[in-house]
Amino acid sequence: MLIECVPNVSEGRRAEVVAAMVDAIRAVADVRLLDHSSDSAHNRSVFTLVGDSAGLERAVLALFERAITDIDLRTHKGEHPRLGAVDVVPFIPIEGATMADCVALAKRVGAEVAARFGVPVYLYEEASSHPARKNLEDIRRGEFEGLAARMATPEWTPDFGPNAPHPRAGASVIGARMPLIAYNINLATDRLEVAKRIAAAIRHSSGGFRYVKAAGFMLEDRGIVQVSMNLTNYEKTPIFRVFETVKREAERHGVSILESEIVGLVPAAALNAAAEFYLQIAGFKPEQVLENKLR
Amino acid sequence: MLIECVPNVSEGRRAEVVAAMVDAIRAVADVRLLDHSSDSAHNRSVFTLVGDSAGLERAVLALFERAITDIDLRTHKGEHPRLGAVDVVPFIPIEGATMADCVALAKRVGAEVAARFGVPVYLYEEASSHPARKNLEDIRRGEFEGLAARMATPEWTPDFGPNAPHPRAGASVIGARMPLIAYNINLATDRLEVAKRIAAAIRHSSGGFRYVKAAGFMLEDRGIVQVSMNLTNYEKTPIFRVFETVKREAERHGVSILESEIVGLVPAAALNAAAEFYLQIAGFKPEQVLENKLR
Repeated sequence: MLIECVPNVSEGRRAEVVAAMVDAIRAVADVRLLDHSSDSAHNRSVFTLVGDSAGLERAVLALFERAITDIDLRTHKGEHPRLGAVDVVPFIPIEGATMADCVALAKRVGAEVAARFGVPVYLYEEASSHPARKNLEDIRRGEFEGLAARMATPEWTPDFGPNAPHPRAGASVIGARMPLIAYNINLATDRLEVAKRIAAAIRHSSGGFRYVKAAGFMLEDRGIVQVSMNLTNYEKTPIFRVFETVKREAERHGVSILESEIVGLVPAAALNAAAEFYLQIAGFKPEQVLENKLR
Repeated sequence: MLIECVPNVSEGRRAEVVAAMVDAIRAVADVRLLDHSSDSAHNRSVFTLVGDSAGLERAVLALFERAITDIDLRTHKGEHPRLGAVDVVPFIPIEGATMADCVALAKRVGAEVAARFGVPVYLYEEASSHPARKNLEDIRRGEFEGLAARMATPEWTPDFGPNAPHPRAGASVIGARMPLIAYNINLATDRLEVAKRIAAAIRHSSGGFRYVKAAGFMLEDRGIVQVSMNLTNYEKTPIFRVFETVKREAERHGVSILESEIVGLVPAAALNAAAEFYLQIAGFKPEQVLENKLR
């Protein structure tokens, strides 16, 4: 079973504090730290871990232990919105693990974090207990500074832990979600309004696909425009459907697709789904991929 | 480094002989026996092994040792054409191994088989030393029974070993090739001549793509026809190009594609190439596949 976990921590400036967190994660068996990066302007660090449920639970608790000791949000400043010392902890199913496994893991870790450290925990995305607490942005509105007032209202009783912020560590948002795909489509035109209109047509917030966030940009150096997207659930809103819709909308403006690009990582299943769609493959099974058989 | 090896052995009836071969392969470190199957009518067994160069070399030699002891082609009968006790040994690059690695391995194993067992060896496909000896069918023409007369002619001097068949084990054909993809396209029609004409249009032997073998069949139970294909090099003749050509040729007869199917295994790269083509993905790298990063 392989689950990914991407904790976001409110410290991106003090290298020795981040190094201590890295050491704490690396000391946990059955977990691999694939990547970590710190942003000084955001004053925030992001860790990418993979492992099984039990290993990730230990790693996240070890990370909390360090963060609670080393971070004090009362003196923390940075551009990025944040609610807690360990701000957000998503669990992401990768291989041999279901979304239900990740939801169960998020709840178990949330309960443990509250019990052990006295930090209130909100569950988000697939682990969410209330529709109003599904989106991270909604939960984080008002940030750490507005948290005490907000937690005094009945709607913001946390899922686990005390009904008030931890004095230094605020609150944490823990949950489960699908892998994100950062996907851009470049158009063979310099007309920015075409990219903006297509972005508006396909994104959820203005009536488009449920799992698409999109914006139109100018690529000044190339003299072309781009529809830049985040696909937040490639199973329910697959890449090929988004691509075909962008293509059709572009045609309406007399514009062609120049190319698309996948930024960073993409799950094999998302690419396979595109091959299945276009080649009209019937009855395809992931076990038919040679590399899956060999491993 | 991961190489696949699929030895075909001329014994598919005596279970104890096949079992001894299985044991001989399994005793070799750094090699996994993924699959083996025996066909009684063909009197032939096929083994699927994966491993590194050194491990596969040892495994193939161990298989030869058993086959030379247990098989006598002078009394072997079966429907499938064959030249030797260990009839054909292809090496196939899978991951972190190039075709050049597989060609080198085929030559090393061929030389060793000839030296150790006195079996003449012909190199075929990518390892072939003569254009006339590239195709397995050409090398195997006349079978074991015609081998002695053939080997008396200068054109059939083997690549390694003596200039005459091994009395019991004949000769072996060893080489390197790409993974095969068995790929069928079903047409929304019962007109067999449409499938036959499309098969003729796309297959190498009648002027089509270099790495396509194809035939048209009737699927009686479903009342539709099928273009049944073997794609012998998906890098040079990719699935999507074959699919698009079949689609276009079918249109010319007023016929649509109902579905396609991949029979058995397909390399991830072959599916990814289809996704890249249809989604017009620029600059895609295999390392962007999440699962590749995690392993």
